[in-house]
Amino acid sequence: MSEPRRARPGDIALLVGRDRKRRLVRLEPGETLQTHKGVVRHDDLIGLPWGSRVLTHMGFPFLLLRPSLNDRILHLRRISQIVYSKDAGYILLKMSIGPGTRVIEAGTGSGALTIVLAHAVRPDGRVYSYDVRPDMQRLARKNLRSVGLEDVVEFKLRDVAEGFDERDVDALFLDLPNPWDYLHQAHTALANGGFFGSILPTANQVSRLLVALERASFGHIEVEEILLRPYKPVAERLRPTDQMVAHTGFLVFARALVSGTAVAPSPDETPAATEPPEEGEDDVP
Amino acid sequence: MSEPRRARPGDIALLVGRDRKRRLVRLEPGETLQTHKGVVRHDDLIGLPWGSRVLTHMGFPFLLLRPSLNDRILHLRRISQIVYSKDAGYILLKMSIGPGTRVIEAGTGSGALTIVLAHAVRPDGRVYSYDVRPDMQRLARKNLRSVGLEDVVEFKLRDVAEGFDERDVDALFLDLPNPWDYLHQAHTALANGGFFGSILPTANQVSRLLVALERASFGHIEVEEILLRPYKPVAERLRPTDQMVAHTGFLVFARALVSGTAVAPSPDETPAATEPPEEGEDDVP
Amino acid sequence: MSEPRRARPGDIALLVGRDRKRRLVRLEPGETLQTHKGVVRHDDLIGLPWGSRVLTHMGFPFLLLRPSLNDRILHLRRISQIVYSKDAGYILLKMSIGPGTRVIEAGTGSGALTIVLAHAVRPDGRVYSYDVRPDMQRLARKNLRSVGLEDVVEFKLRDVAEGFDERDVDALFLDLPNPWDYLHQAHTALANGGFFGSILPTANQVSRLLVALERASFGHIEVEEILLRPYKPVAERLRPTDQMVAHTGFLVFARALVSGTAVAPSPDETPAATEPPEEGEDDVP
Amino acid sequence: MSEPRRARPGDIALLVGRDRKRRLVRLEPGETLQTHKGVVRHDDLIGLPWGSRVLTHMGFPFLLLRPSLNDRILHLRRISQIVYSKDAGYILLKMSIGPGTRVIEAGTGSGALTIVLAHAVRPDGRVYSYDVRPDMQRLARKNLRSVGLEDVVEFKLRDVAEGFDERDVDALFLDLPNPWDYLHQAHTALANGGFFGSILPTANQVSRLLVALERASFGHIEVEEILLRPYKPVAERLRPTDQMVAHTGFLVFARALVSGTAVAPSPDETPAATEPPEEGEDDVP
Repeated sequence: MSEPRRARPGDIALLVGRDRKRRLVRLEPGETLQTHKGVVRHDDLIGLPWGSRVLTHMGFPFLLLRPSLNDRILHLRRISQIVYSKDAGYILLKMSIGPGTRVIEAGTGSGALTIVLAHAVRPDGRVYSYDVRPDMQRLARKNLRSVGLEDVVEFKLRDVAEGFDERDVDALFLDLPNPWDYLHQAHTALANGGFFGSILPTANQVSRLLVALERASFGHIEVEEILLRPYKPVAERLRPTDQMVAHTGFLVFARALVSGTAVAPSPDETPAATEPPEEGEDDVP
Repeated sequence: MSEPRRARPGDIALLVGRDRKRRLVRLEPGETLQTHKGVVRHDDLIGLPWGSRVLTHMGFPFLLLRPSLNDRILHLRRISQIVYSKDAGYILLKMSIGPGTRVIEAGTGSGALTIVLAHAVRPDGRVYSYDVRPDMQRLARKNLRSVGLEDVVEFKLRDVAEGFDERDVDALFLDLPNPWDYLHQAHTALANGGFFGSILPTANQVSRLLVALERASFGHIEVEEILLRPYKPVAERLRPTDQMVAHTGFLVFARALVSGTAVAPSPDETPAATEPPEEGEDDVP
Repeated sequence: MSEPRRARPGDIALLVGRDRKRRLVRLEPGETLQTHKGVVRHDDLIGLPWGSRVLTHMGFPFLLLRPSLNDRILHLRRISQIVYSKDAGYILLKMSIGPGTRVIEAGTGSGALTIVLAHAVRPDGRVYSYDVRPDMQRLARKNLRSVGLEDVVEFKLRDVAEGFDERDVDALFLDLPNPWDYLHQAHTALANGGFFGSILPTANQVSRLLVALERASFGHIEVEEILLRPYKPVAERLRPTDQMVAHTGFLVFARALVSGTAVAPSPDETPAATEPPEEGEDDVP
Repeated sequence: MSEPRRARPGDIALLVGRDRKRRLVRLEPGETLQTHKGVVRHDDLIGLPWGSRVLTHMGFPFLLLRPSLNDRILHLRRISQIVYSKDAGYILLKMSIGPGTRVIEAGTGSGALTIVLAHAVRPDGRVYSYDVRPDMQRLARKNLRSVGLEDVVEFKLRDVAEGFDERDVDALFLDLPNPWDYLHQAHTALANGGFFGSILPTANQVSRLLVALERASFGHIEVEEILLRPYKPVAERLRPTDQMVAHTGFLVFARALVSGTAVAPSPDETPAATEPPEEGEDDVP
């Protein structure tokens, strides 16, 4: 990525205090940052190598870091629940999203997943992001711009009940409370065998989506959940944190079948979705 | 990605039975596939649209699918423990690995993480993958070739105690039993503020790495664990599977500091690593 | 409990091999035990203090232990899914089951929970255990006898649709696939404010039970899940085991209200069920 | 347990609001309870059947319930971290603690586990609870009295380095930061084959205890963790709560061996601690 290795004006910096408190700030000459442990002048940060330690006027140390994609997402301005990195990273691999992929997303929401998708499909891929709420999409656009990824995304202000403009897309993700209402539209937009995904907070929604997916010519359906357990990173007292996020959403994955070929699995034979195959079972030389 | 939407000779196909049993196969004219539920001729698959349903000679239905990146990894030939998708996807986002990133990995192992990294950094990024065992790297090379990603990777058969050739890389991941022995080499190869990651099976290893990271000028250290809980995807009987993978490894992340700036966090003030900031706390317009 | 501290004829012994393989055996003079690592004569065990080490004829060491309640349950002969200790122990505390409690259970199943309940309510309490299947109840009776607890239990071979004989019981647990069909009968048997519990494998069943509980004058409803994560107990390589049980069942708890007083909680204000109260909030001197 | 079924003066009542907020209160004639949703006069509660619905002067409904053992523990006055019900219930079953058991506990702490143990061993069992801090034991004594269980417990104000007074106890639980320092004392107090347990917050403590247990003639060592995942109990929107307790402590169990018989397990053969035996493998008729 060969980026400059020093903080410049206009860069977004992550400042992490010795107490692990975090601040995200855009560096502007002449500005000051008021932390909970004293003041830092932006001019004292600009020009420093990333990874430097800086002190507030009260002598409290902070690390000057370039934020990761995950940091950017955690600090996003939001007016809706966002898709977290633990889920977004797994979505990329389950749906084979990478450089060059053409992917539809609805709704846009605050743009957290949009950022992950756009970051992954650059430079030749494309994200088509639909939302019916202008305020949402305005915020998402602003969030994408702030991470420099807006060129990868086509925002569309539309109710997806009216259908998607694209055809033959590689992957399509529905982050909507009622994805079952848009499966026909999704199937029409997806390539044969294309990747479908959705995230839903309640078990009832998952059940309803499962019924609808089988009726709408989707197959190879999987339901999974990702849990992130953070630890206190102290060598001599290693232990999980006291509290953790217990739930973000259930992930549902499926594949668009050639119409009419849906296959009802016999549920009693369902092995764990991630069960690795027997050694030597495959015929891939 | 505008790929052809029909199965062609030489393609890798994923066949998923109605009982969810899975087979990965390279399509070759004239060949036959022997499944647990009857025989399928490759010639009957070649030319079909992806997402088609096919029947064995015994009438048992399979779905003909293009494998996802996750499917490819699950079916990889392996002679070592691999990094699973639940972990690999999160690693990408925590370490900001995407198109254009230059990333070092050691050891190569069977190449599972190498594939995820290579897939993510295309077309302009680069993966430098080090291993001391020729058999491992031979297998990994073969695995990379089988997914068409070998051009993105430079394999190096070397003990990383001797150091890395690269400088100023964006990210570096150590999947080795004793990462603490190579932190000086890692720091030398990483850009200022660059992303360090490691995966370790035991708590003792994590403790030992934490001590070494602080001594070797790394900071903003985080320890996390990702759990994947699969569900039986049956609408009217939704429930987690009976068994799950309980543990793959602890993920350790850190940032390369400008030498001498390591900051010891005061552990009692450690908030959860994923705790989102207070609304409006940041100064990013 | 002042039990003899040496193994006697007729005692049930737990033998744990150095490889952690476990065997449960009733000690009978003249008998021999065939293990995977050689033979042990019962006469060589009888008279030894519990906690002794014994060797098979091949020199493989086993520990001679009195089985815990949990060991007995894990080794129960079963013809149905049993309630595991991780769930059963929590059920005791949530439903205040202890010495003197009168508790109804349906169905009996293989008797695993029956054993835990009977063990807990001795000597003055009573377990009333209903099942419609004679084979189940025969097995459960045999299992209870083998742990010496049959005197605490009254088995009733009956379809609970016909109602329970008891009135004013302290607690009632339904381990049946359709508990919603028996809530009127349960309410009639329970004391005012009595404890209701159920365990259900699927989310759909939980939803259905929740609806029925509110209609049948139950309140203070809670849904919880208990996960047990075992570790490899190796000091220098401490780590979770590779696999774990991902799911046994969802636990549902409620209280029998004076009829007509059901209170619909407003779900958006639902705090975590286990959230401790604010310091000093209570008025209990 | 044949308790009166109406609230009487002096009873402890649990009031659960429609918003699931909870209050614990001792009913005293003439008193009033100030809730976040209005006032309730104790005289309006006294005489009501348990399980009744009551309204505050503002018309906000509360349920009048007898608290469960778990409720009492959650609302305990505490000056130290307590052992939670999810762990305490499992401890009972793993250590075979029930009516008649003689069990030692150290330290007493705020008395949460003491209550669970005392409740379980009544009427003939005995809890011997050691602590070195007078303020702790004063609070625990008060807490035990408030649940009517003080007669079952003998409190001892002593540093357990000086040893325990009892011999041949069935079970012994160390809730201390440095249990490894007291294993000789524990072994002396325990019966042959007796049950040892401990709870420890950090992985480092677990490793240290494991080493010490093997040296101090303990065997059949197990390390486990219990996670409680609460759900929002809403039929049409069933889902886990947003947050959960991520960690209370690692549970360590072992058995006191006849001195000199410790058996080092070969770790690579370690199966999951809760793995049920093969069907029909045991020799228990």
